[in-house]
Amino acid sequence: MRRPSQQAARPTELFPISADWPDGALRLSGIPAAELADRFGTPLYVYDTDTIEQAASDIRTGLGAGYPDSSVAYASKALSAPWLYRLLHRAGLHFDVVSGGEVASATAGGVPTENIAYHGNYKSATEIAEAVGIGIGRIVIDHVDEIPAVSTAAQRVGVVQDVWLRLNPTVFAGGHPKIRTALVSSKFGLSISTGVAEEAVIACTQSRNVRLVGYHFHLGSQIADASPFASAVQTTLDFASRMVERHHVEPREITVGGGFPVRYSPADPASDSKALAHQIASLFQAAATAHELRPHLRVEPGRAIVARAGVALYRVGSTKRAGGRTVIAVDGGIGDNPRPALYGARYRPVAVHERPGERPIRVDIVGRYCEEGDVLARGVSIGPLRSGDLVAFPVSGAYQLSMASNYNGVPRPAVVVVDRGQAILVRRRETPADMLNCEIPVTLPSESVA
Amino acid sequence: MRRPSQQAARPTELFPISADWPDGALRLSGIPAAELADRFGTPLYVYDTDTIEQAASDIRTGLGAGYPDSSVAYASKALSAPWLYRLLHRAGLHFDVVSGGEVASATAGGVPTENIAYHGNYKSATEIAEAVGIGIGRIVIDHVDEIPAVSTAAQRVGVVQDVWLRLNPTVFAGGHPKIRTALVSSKFGLSISTGVAEEAVIACTQSRNVRLVGYHFHLGSQIADASPFASAVQTTLDFASRMVERHHVEPREITVGGGFPVRYSPADPASDSKALAHQIASLFQAAATAHELRPHLRVEPGRAIVARAGVALYRVGSTKRAGGRTVIAVDGGIGDNPRPALYGARYRPVAVHERPGERPIRVDIVGRYCEEGDVLARGVSIGPLRSGDLVAFPVSGAYQLSMASNYNGVPRPAVVVVDRGQAILVRRRETPADMLNCEIPVTLPSESVA
Repeated sequence: MRRPSQQAARPTELFPISADWPDGALRLSGIPAAELADRFGTPLYVYDTDTIEQAASDIRTGLGAGYPDSSVAYASKALSAPWLYRLLHRAGLHFDVVSGGEVASATAGGVPTENIAYHGNYKSATEIAEAVGIGIGRIVIDHVDEIPAVSTAAQRVGVVQDVWLRLNPTVFAGGHPKIRTALVSSKFGLSISTGVAEEAVIACTQSRNVRLVGYHFHLGSQIADASPFASAVQTTLDFASRMVERHHVEPREITVGGGFPVRYSPADPASDSKALAHQIASLFQAAATAHELRPHLRVEPGRAIVARAGVALYRVGSTKRAGGRTVIAVDGGIGDNPRPALYGARYRPVAVHERPGERPIRVDIVGRYCEEGDVLARGVSIGPLRSGDLVAFPVSGAYQLSMASNYNGVPRPAVVVVDRGQAILVRRRETPADMLNCEIPVTLPSESVA
Repeated sequence: MRRPSQQAARPTELFPISADWPDGALRLSGIPAAELADRFGTPLYVYDTDTIEQAASDIRTGLGAGYPDSSVAYASKALSAPWLYRLLHRAGLHFDVVSGGEVASATAGGVPTENIAYHGNYKSATEIAEAVGIGIGRIVIDHVDEIPAVSTAAQRVGVVQDVWLRLNPTVFAGGHPKIRTALVSSKFGLSISTGVAEEAVIACTQSRNVRLVGYHFHLGSQIADASPFASAVQTTLDFASRMVERHHVEPREITVGGGFPVRYSPADPASDSKALAHQIASLFQAAATAHELRPHLRVEPGRAIVARAGVALYRVGSTKRAGGRTVIAVDGGIGDNPRPALYGARYRPVAVHERPGERPIRVDIVGRYCEEGDVLARGVSIGPLRSGDLVAFPVSGAYQLSMASNYNGVPRPAVVVVDRGQAILVRRRETPADMLNCEIPVTLPSESVA
């Protein structure tokens, strides 16, 4: 077994900004992580409000410095929870959703429906009617067929619905090849180059209960620099200018999506959301001036708002030697965090209590789920860890709980928010009874026969 | 675009045995699939009891023909639901679980706790105490540390707990390299070759409230033929014989796990669970005779019991041309079926209504989730499909709903069982209110301050 020659550096930059380690024991907002685990059980997801507020503020500030008429919407799919909507609404953010479920969570958090934009590549007529009926701020048209559906729904309740078109910029001069490929063959949006986007503009102008107020695009995830935005903004503003000339449609709002990068490990490049937001705003400013357009600018980060704020705490079970590796089992896994299995995501977990003088060992941290592929972290330097110890996985705030399942009949974790030195339970741990809530006791016909 | 020269053959062998297509429209147990979708909504999971009963009977029959003193346990992780436990209990099966949640579902289905074996690589002291307390049939020891925990728990309630040891046969003469690798470095079980398994035997014999009654191993998934079982049985019985000699521990029960293969596409090799069960039983018979042992034999299929019985029905939304492909969006996806994203699983979907004279086209069927990787089936020949049409994904009974999430705020699907020509709703569709059930309304400290 390879033993690193010295204690692995503590990756403070991956933890919430309120984290500290007095005497080598992790605290979050001044509260010992071990105390949180003992009080609320494990697996436990802890979110730090300072980190969320800082992330939101950084992006707002950076964006506003480069283009004052701008705003930030939080992309709910990273984590949808009433406490979070409440917090971000107070911070002045708007919101993206993709389902009635996310709308319900946002309104439970006190978000006015006019601050919500409804996205998605599949919206049934029922979902569209519901969104229009509750006064959703914007519906983002992903396919031409949605336009008559929105118009009909709006007519029924006697309103004119504001919509954006989700554009697929397709022709993409610069940018990362992977992003370019994704754009060309994307399942999302209306292609500019094929003429479908213009058809949608025309359909909107011909629909009495639909008002086309802007355009939207989204490039992807973990975009390291502003250059892909430059090309997409150019293409979009070119298109918007043509639509002004040809159809007298003024682009009042342009939304350039999210994709702000987040570090999951010290090996990832450093990311600076504020600087990236500023760059995007500046290039938007230049392009808008060149096009003689003055639309409102919006960005839609999700991961960059909540990922670093969240820490997952797990309790260690057994340690095994298996085929030359040391395997440490914890009480969570693919059920609460499918990202390693889905995307090959890599994490940098740390022991909640560091024991002075003990050298870290190289281990695989595996989950409790009955699946060989349930590995949370491979080949990480940690510990040593003993049964009953706690492990903290930083950067666990996004796309973990939102994708969590009840696989293996395991309840989803509790969630605690740490705020101004206090710990507040915002989501209780599921119970077996919760998991059976939708099951209907039945006697099957074949039973009565037998 | 490539157009197949003729109608793609209907893959009847992938559908439930009660499926038929009068006038080209899919029926399940005599009920039109379209009627089920209209009545219960989509996405809808439909399970056919005939197919489940047939699958269970095939494996029991094949096994019993080769080794009469044998039984079948259903591995809950494929799908855990009270109606299913009820049905399989009536069919004479035993059950594997890996959590208190699965125990709760099994007992809700009327399964006696003595018919349940409790598995898993992470069992907390609390979970062990609960399992012992409710009279679980067998606890499957995955790590030596679990033995004192079981003994303590059993002593507290004044019982002697029957246990198996999960063995890791490690040294593996034959078999597929992938399986062998999995075995050598597995996170599961007690290694025979390192001596850990024997340590566990000794620990059991020294624990007054633990009775070691057998051994268990599990090789993996989708095992095409019996040869990997032959080596593992040999290794396990060699070990069992040594334990008789050295520690006077008689192996009353040997469980050889599951892994019976299932076809997901006509391109997969045909599978015959009955024949495989018979082969396993026969080789076990021969090995047991050679070792002068007569243990009870158990197999633990999951997928092979429920996969083919389940059909997922989706409603088609938009069709798009994108980067040379035709993309059809449906109202489900990675949230109810993460297998394509997790494992690269391939499906063979069909249109619920075939239109005579129309040639199928080659399409990608994508889900409704805001993720480019949410693709349910790539490059499949189907349709043509129009907005509002229904698509049926066969072989959807295992590891789909059990791994389903609320990603994108989308409720998990309803489940209907078709049985003797009747459709019974066994699980209602989740609602936004269900998804908010565990959220706790809070005012954060920082709000009161502000």
